[in-house]
Amino acid sequence: MTRLVQKFGGTSVADLDLIRAAAGRVKREVDAGHQVAVVVSAMAGVTNQLVELADSVSAMYDAREYDVIVSTGEQASAGLMAMALQDLGVPARSWMGWQIPLNTDDVHGRARITGVGMDELDRRLSSGEVAVVAGFQGIGSGGRITTLGRGGSDTTAVALAAATGAERCDIYTDVDGVYTSDPRIVARARKLDKITYEEMLEMASLGAKVLQTRAVELAMKEGVRLQVLSSFNNSPGTLVVGEEEIMEQVLVSGIAYSRDEAKVTLTRVADRPGVAAAVFGPLAEADINVDMIVQNVAADEKTTDITFTVTRRDLQRAVDVLEKNRDHLGFGDLLSASDVVKVSVIGVGMRSHAGVAQSMFKALADRGINIQVISTSEIKVSVLIDEEYTELALRALHGAYGLDAD
Amino acid sequence: MTRLVQKFGGTSVADLDLIRAAAGRVKREVDAGHQVAVVVSAMAGVTNQLVELADSVSAMYDAREYDVIVSTGEQASAGLMAMALQDLGVPARSWMGWQIPLNTDDVHGRARITGVGMDELDRRLSSGEVAVVAGFQGIGSGGRITTLGRGGSDTTAVALAAATGAERCDIYTDVDGVYTSDPRIVARARKLDKITYEEMLEMASLGAKVLQTRAVELAMKEGVRLQVLSSFNNSPGTLVVGEEEIMEQVLVSGIAYSRDEAKVTLTRVADRPGVAAAVFGPLAEADINVDMIVQNVAADEKTTDITFTVTRRDLQRAVDVLEKNRDHLGFGDLLSASDVVKVSVIGVGMRSHAGVAQSMFKALADRGINIQVISTSEIKVSVLIDEEYTELALRALHGAYGLDAD
Repeated sequence: MTRLVQKFGGTSVADLDLIRAAAGRVKREVDAGHQVAVVVSAMAGVTNQLVELADSVSAMYDAREYDVIVSTGEQASAGLMAMALQDLGVPARSWMGWQIPLNTDDVHGRARITGVGMDELDRRLSSGEVAVVAGFQGIGSGGRITTLGRGGSDTTAVALAAATGAERCDIYTDVDGVYTSDPRIVARARKLDKITYEEMLEMASLGAKVLQTRAVELAMKEGVRLQVLSSFNNSPGTLVVGEEEIMEQVLVSGIAYSRDEAKVTLTRVADRPGVAAAVFGPLAEADINVDMIVQNVAADEKTTDITFTVTRRDLQRAVDVLEKNRDHLGFGDLLSASDVVKVSVIGVGMRSHAGVAQSMFKALADRGINIQVISTSEIKVSVLIDEEYTELALRALHGAYGLDAD
Repeated sequence: MTRLVQKFGGTSVADLDLIRAAAGRVKREVDAGHQVAVVVSAMAGVTNQLVELADSVSAMYDAREYDVIVSTGEQASAGLMAMALQDLGVPARSWMGWQIPLNTDDVHGRARITGVGMDELDRRLSSGEVAVVAGFQGIGSGGRITTLGRGGSDTTAVALAAATGAERCDIYTDVDGVYTSDPRIVARARKLDKITYEEMLEMASLGAKVLQTRAVELAMKEGVRLQVLSSFNNSPGTLVVGEEEIMEQVLVSGIAYSRDEAKVTLTRVADRPGVAAAVFGPLAEADINVDMIVQNVAADEKTTDITFTVTRRDLQRAVDVLEKNRDHLGFGDLLSASDVVKVSVIGVGMRSHAGVAQSMFKALADRGINIQVISTSEIKVSVLIDEEYTELALRALHGAYGLDAD
């Protein structure tokens, strides 16, 4: 008897017909002999309404009360899903975070899961009862309702899969899997059958909004096999698993991009030890995340140019922080631009293969696309380019790495 | 330092402006030196929406899941009210039924309160923090969410007032008190300053929907002083208290009526011992409540006519039950009518004064209104009359007992 977690996002439970359809999917797994835990999000739009109410009543609201309010969306969904299952003859009951309990820390609005109480849940699952768990919510150490932050239901599902020893955690959403690139731009993008946790993480952090980063991290840590699939068709989705499960490693699994990039260049910074710390220290203190960094020796060999990227939201603050420290840092010019995009090739295969970056640079050079900044990790090469070239670059790279569908 | 419970119904928290206004009323009591517990209903309309969702998903729904769904309305209100209070600088936190805990039995959908855990709540109230309690909900013995039935927030408020030793329980609603009669019919009806629990119970059971009957019963049992008042003006409301608090007892406090009556007459029933039991036994078994009963000896002195009333909803079932037992009961005709109304004069003063019923009969006779059935209790005289005479009867009685406003 294997266990399964099925998670249905907001668009998959947006109305009663969809809830009934989702219940039908659960019933199929139960009929196939699985013990099933279901995790539900709030009905699409409900959380936004609740957030708006909370925002409107008080500009400086209490995050503890915010959690009380917004967690009601998942509570209602869980009750409705349990009813829909019972209506199909499937024994089911709803579970709120505090009932399981799904323990978290006390950081309201973005709490982290600290443990899942399994005694009663385990007994019920073993007896064949479907557990319908309200996603996104938990209980803090003081006995108050917490929420896990936007998209937290994915994390609930993974935590539950780990705690129940589920064979797989199926994440039902409105896309049918993970693609080699954005299909709206790259017409020949293909759905991947499998992808590794590491690749998925890189994809997610680059704006592929299929899965919440935290959920993937937790799945990787706990070895939970994830499947991303659509609740609007019956196609198989994309499995997110460990490398060991993927026999034939391809060099590159996907081409991702992020428009949420802005570039800052400081010219003629004194080229002395500690200069990077002097520049990035104040930014870190201001809670500004710096992504790509490149430092070039300038022509005069006594100064250096430093270029880095931040999110577009943080750009003005970053400029302000640096201008405030101008005297101390002693740079020449401060240049900034937000008409840039980060394009990345991602693949665990590149660990064991040289030349991946070189192929990228060549493919871009062949189209006359200038690379402004480069950064690499073990399984990713990212370049910053002019935003105008986004589509051209994505299609060029998709072809260059042999990802195009037939 | 005295304690106060303030309960705001759905129309009093129907939108954010009203929630802010209600928070202002709480702040005034806090500023006046009270320790305050606030009980909130769901925002007007929300409970109906939730009930509709539950009804639509499954015709034979699980009452436990129904409670999970409908209790979210009060949860959201409680969070919003706590935020609104904090925004006014009043320390406040929300409390769900399971957090207090407000313990109930496991009769989901209409649970009864079995106890209120006061340790933490007491400490918080004493420290000056306002407790914002989600009305209508509790926690059953199995740790599941229960609800108290429609209007249950009044009961929550009274239970909390009893548990916290509150000086008074203020029920804010959309009417400004209890009237001597229905002001829509009797233009000269007056708002009562005070009314006894017993009178309020009779009024409530006759369709004056100001307070839930259960809440009044609990208040009477626990000696909780209630005040019914409007959240839309600043007039004093009506105090519902024990008889000892009302110095000058009037003979009659109010004239009530109920259109939810239907009449059944069985003619020529054999006049022998046990006949009443034979008639009403099967009705009781069918869970049909019989209200007024009258039995007359017929002309032949060997048979009797029995007339009684049931609610209009139950009329057809009552007729069916009796027809099924016709052979056994051996009656002549079965006559039924639903164009009747029950009019009642209510007042604890009639305990010590004779002649109240006589005044009623005379006032009605003077207007040519025929009385079909009479029933009396210690503090009430009720008559069943033709529905056409409802308004005439109410105005005549209101004047006859000196209740008319100047």
